[in-house]
Amino acid sequence: MNPQARRWKCVCAYDGTDYSGWQSQVSGNAIQDLIEGALEETLGNPSRIHGSGRTDAGVHAKGQVFHFDASWKHGGESLRKALCTRLPQDIRVLDARVCPSSFHARISAKGKRYLYRAIEGSASPMEFRYWASLPVHRLDLDAMRMAATVLVGERDFSSFSASSGDSCDENPVKNLWQLDVRRTGKRLKIQVEGSGFLYKMVRSLCGALFDVGRGRLEVHQVKEILDAKKRTSLVVTAAPQGLCLEKVFYRKVKFRR
Amino acid sequence: MNPQARRWKCVCAYDGTDYSGWQSQVSGNAIQDLIEGALEETLGNPSRIHGSGRTDAGVHAKGQVFHFDASWKHGGESLRKALCTRLPQDIRVLDARVCPSSFHARISAKGKRYLYRAIEGSASPMEFRYWASLPVHRLDLDAMRMAATVLVGERDFSSFSASSGDSCDENPVKNLWQLDVRRTGKRLKIQVEGSGFLYKMVRSLCGALFDVGRGRLEVHQVKEILDAKKRTSLVVTAAPQGLCLEKVFYRKVKFRR
Repeated sequence: MNPQARRWKCVCAYDGTDYSGWQSQVSGNAIQDLIEGALEETLGNPSRIHGSGRTDAGVHAKGQVFHFDASWKHGGESLRKALCTRLPQDIRVLDARVCPSSFHARISAKGKRYLYRAIEGSASPMEFRYWASLPVHRLDLDAMRMAATVLVGERDFSSFSASSGDSCDENPVKNLWQLDVRRTGKRLKIQVEGSGFLYKMVRSLCGALFDVGRGRLEVHQVKEILDAKKRTSLVVTAAPQGLCLEKVFYRKVKFRR
Repeated sequence: MNPQARRWKCVCAYDGTDYSGWQSQVSGNAIQDLIEGALEETLGNPSRIHGSGRTDAGVHAKGQVFHFDASWKHGGESLRKALCTRLPQDIRVLDARVCPSSFHARISAKGKRYLYRAIEGSASPMEFRYWASLPVHRLDLDAMRMAATVLVGERDFSSFSASSGDSCDENPVKNLWQLDVRRTGKRLKIQVEGSGFLYKMVRSLCGALFDVGRGRLEVHQVKEILDAKKRTSLVVTAAPQGLCLEKVFYRKVKFRR
């Protein structure tokens, strides 16, 4: 790290529909690639950014966090604006501020909040990017909430993760604080909060809850699947477009803008 | 018209962001082109569709209406589904039914409702497709509503239309029933209803109202502009992405699905 460099913490939002996900890809069509490109243009030299975690292709974020080291001499607001002018409209940097060099977007994270949006029926042309469509019949919310109580708590979530090359060493025990199902008319929202999430865990939890709501899975089966600590074909991953990373939680530290 | 053909009335919705507008283009990237393509695939022969009117590039619709003649022997719902499977997700046919052969989507229309959406400040990555961004300061709603009362009624709207090649013979006198400005937090909605609209008329009316709200135009100037019956550079056309064609009104006729 350049001795004049400081660590920057940024919050960003994006519509993931047209991207291959957060993590850098050979194709260069990942959100990380675009932000690193904008950063290189702004700073005049390449800089690697570190996100709080990946989001899959098609998944959105309102509060993704990343950090990087750079010797930018101006303020956070001018850095934020400089990045925004170099990014497409569906990726926005919402905040940029100097943080302690001990801060790490992924390692320092204490938890995350996700929101999953689904419509019973077809999503309109203005909705299909942000709402998953569920086959038209009314889901059993009571059953879904019952299944949610089985899943909340400190548990081994191996059954609700998909294997991925680089996270095989990750501890599968996570603390799920909240799995809250709400309905307004034909719109369902599932708010998910926890200490951390395995690969595709949120979408797998939501997929299981939808199947409980449809009567394809019984609540006791959800308990059995969880206890088996092994993914089975009974667990379906819900569609990516319904998912949004709402917020990443950190211990309160004073940051300077 | 094939003697076995019947006239069909369809309602459709679209996100106009990625299209060159409603009307057929040499580029083939107009909404009309895509629907005619889907119709040709469905019917096995080309068929021209007639919309209630054009929408510009970037403008959306929740209730655009079109008609066409075809000898489709199945029901309206199967036609609707057949078209939807052949259209991209940002264009949906919501309804298809047989109508009297005297029905014409444009000529039979008795009125239209539009909604213009704007945010005071920046639109987020999930909003910029459907909300226009206004420079960050609070608009004067009372002044906007005062200006709206000047514009409502049967008037010559030449000052609020942009010339276009093929509508120069159109009668510029239209009956504007409603021009209603509402605010919720930083979100403004202008609902516009009238007997008919000249080219870019809704966006020009909204552009003038926003300028009144910002203090760039006085209410009496809006009256003078209207009375001049001639477009001036004082009238700015509001950005297309805020606009949505909500509904086309027709005299009640019995349609068969």
